[in-house]
Amino acid sequence: MKLYDAMAPNPRRVRIFMAEKGIELPIEHLELMEGQSRKPEFMAKNSLGETPVLELDDGRYLTESIAICRYLEHLYPEPTLFGKTAEEQAFVEMWTRRMEQLIMGPFGAFGIHSFEFFADKIEQVPAYAETQMRLIPKRWAWLDTEISDGRPFIAGDAFSVADITGAATLMIASFISYEIPADLKHVSAWANRI
Amino acid sequence: MKLYDAMAPNPRRVRIFMAEKGIELPIEHLELMEGQSRKPEFMAKNSLGETPVLELDDGRYLTESIAICRYLEHLYPEPTLFGKTAEEQAFVEMWTRRMEQLIMGPFGAFGIHSFEFFADKIEQVPAYAETQMRLIPKRWAWLDTEISDGRPFIAGDAFSVADITGAATLMIASFISYEIPADLKHVSAWANRI
Repeated sequence: MKLYDAMAPNPRRVRIFMAEKGIELPIEHLELMEGQSRKPEFMAKNSLGETPVLELDDGRYLTESIAICRYLEHLYPEPTLFGKTAEEQAFVEMWTRRMEQLIMGPFGAFGIHSFEFFADKIEQVPAYAETQMRLIPKRWAWLDTEISDGRPFIAGDAFSVADITGAATLMIASFISYEIPADLKHVSAWANRI
Repeated sequence: MKLYDAMAPNPRRVRIFMAEKGIELPIEHLELMEGQSRKPEFMAKNSLGETPVLELDDGRYLTESIAICRYLEHLYPEPTLFGKTAEEQAFVEMWTRRMEQLIMGPFGAFGIHSFEFFADKIEQVPAYAETQMRLIPKRWAWLDTEISDGRPFIAGDAFSVADITGAATLMIASFISYEIPADLKHVSAWANRI
């Protein structure tokens, strides 16, 4: 297998996942700012021109961060990051999706609708980017209430792929110098723990 | 267990999933247009005020359509809808996510940024809704090329939860009288098959 990686939040989710399990794979690093993920050679691997991509041993290309992580979980089960029992797995998936859509989502939407890098890739709507920035503190406040039951990690007692999506979001937040509102004690404690 | 259902694309994904497996559960139907999912009693089950929600036998509430479907897959394995081998499961997840984000996503974004129903729920940006409507035919064209290898279903030879997300998207398309461009032969054949 081989991972096509880049300095961006989604490939970072896979790299954190691999680091937690001690997985070492051949890695090819793409420079997104130099357009390496949009070259025909890479587009043949992922027609979306996006990272990460995992090249499987049979030559097929697997995309989408969480699909890659779940496949790696199958190959390298320890430590469990998608939950052990069916119920744990259900709540890890629920929280991974909530973290993606509600917490990471507005940061991502803000970025692709305001960063120069995306100007030639999508139809940017600056007014939409502004709504996303206004949404972010509300979403952190929602998360703060949700985890106010004292659980140490997003989906419960165990660190999981839901926390990894949170960690990737903190990476974006840091990149744009966004600080979690200090009065959100539970989220701030979780971020420090991560 | 008990399913909280409504007439909307996401709960519809769970209902199709259950129908494919012949699963029968107690169902409580919520009238979204009457605000039933925003009442305190339901918000206590899902703080997002969204359907579907699966009440588990231990009294906990599981949200997010695909988390619910995957949990039901564990309880009712046949017929398999998330893939059998680890590789099949990986590509079903990859395609479920691509269908959600790239195909269902723009329809959903168009809807929540233009329908009166969402006017008091989110900060609507009509210009953003318009970009999403322009994106839709491009995304169907992309999908057409991706499935032009002759495979009958989105993720390969077997009908899967990725096709169910596609079916829910066709439900939205029908609701807004959007027709798949007739020159997209592979997507049209797939839609007829579904």
